Amino acid sequence: MTASVTTTLNDVNIDAVAGLAGKIQQEPQVADTKWNARVNWKGGFRSEASIRDFGPMPSDEPDALGGTDTGPNPVEQVLAALGNCLAVGYAANATAMGIEIRDLNIDLEGDLDLHTFLGLAPQGNAGYDNISVKVNIDSEAPRAEIQALHDKVVGTSPVGHTLSRAVPVKIDLA
Amino acid sequence: MTASVTTTLNDVNIDAVAGLAGKIQQEPQVADTKWNARVNWKGGFRSEASIRDFGPMPSDEPDALGGTDTGPNPVEQVLAALGNCLAVGYAANATAMGIEIRDLNIDLEGDLDLHTFLGLAPQGNAGYDNISVKVNIDSEAPRAEIQALHDKVVGTSPVGHTLSRAVPVKIDLA
Repeated sequence: MTASVTTTLNDVNIDAVAGLAGKIQQEPQVADTKWNARVNWKGGFRSEASIRDFGPMPSDEPDALGGTDTGPNPVEQVLAALGNCLAVGYAANATAMGIEIRDLNIDLEGDLDLHTFLGLAPQGNAGYDNISVKVNIDSEAPRAEIQALHDKVVGTSPVGHTLSRAVPVKIDLA
Repeated sequence: MTASVTTTLNDVNIDAVAGLAGKIQQEPQVADTKWNARVNWKGGFRSEASIRDFGPMPSDEPDALGGTDTGPNPVEQVLAALGNCLAVGYAANATAMGIEIRDLNIDLEGDLDLHTFLGLAPQGNAGYDNISVKVNIDSEAPRAEIQALHDKVVGTSPVGHTLSRAVPVKIDLA
């Protein structure tokens, strides 16, 4: 028997990412992905989202908004998705650039005016007016490299682009 | 001692919602809300999002994208947030309209081209090209009322508007 030790920068399987990119260059349609979720209403402002085989994730509203506060609310979940997406982007691109990340934390905040949601401002914006994100990276890489990494991540973030661009959203009764 | 039984349509505390709306009409600045999340990177493409005092929510990417598939990925989380938001909207507005919802399920799908995320299409759209949602409502209300409910919900959804409009997203290194 032989023991093998594989050290992977940032614990990222960069070969898998590079392999997927190579495959897409051969077969561009492989890049066309579909993603799904199903939400089941549980009464009141409670619901659960199911994604593939993962356990249902609870959602609710705080008491002040008429909920029972049993889980994060949907607009908080949007911020979480953005932070998680940026984390993937930093890990992937840092690894490709040979940068070791020792630690990474991302703080997100969004401003939202409740007037439209509550029916007090028809035609208004019910969503976030703006979102601000602070990225805390612990790395020995020079600041210029970290800045180049940052610019790459911001320019290629799927959730970042989804939020900062107007996405056609079609919502129909079944 | 007396026992009291309160029957609330759709289990929604509509008085709390109306009370908040009334308070905002008196003090408009109460409508200005801030929401937060913090994301901690856990190595590889794994991260955890923390929202208020709720337990951390795991995020990962599927094997095919170089992850270890221990949780839903960020773009799936966006769809979940949208579905959860719509569920709140249906519950709130149906209750305000006197419509009983017996059951409600929401199916969401999004199309995303991986070229930009993988660095194969600079300046391209890394996010969703489009999102489609099917809402399944079980209610005895007439179809015209359900359609009016649906139109109200779609027009006032915080996450719906966040996705369908371009939100200023500012992402900075700390």
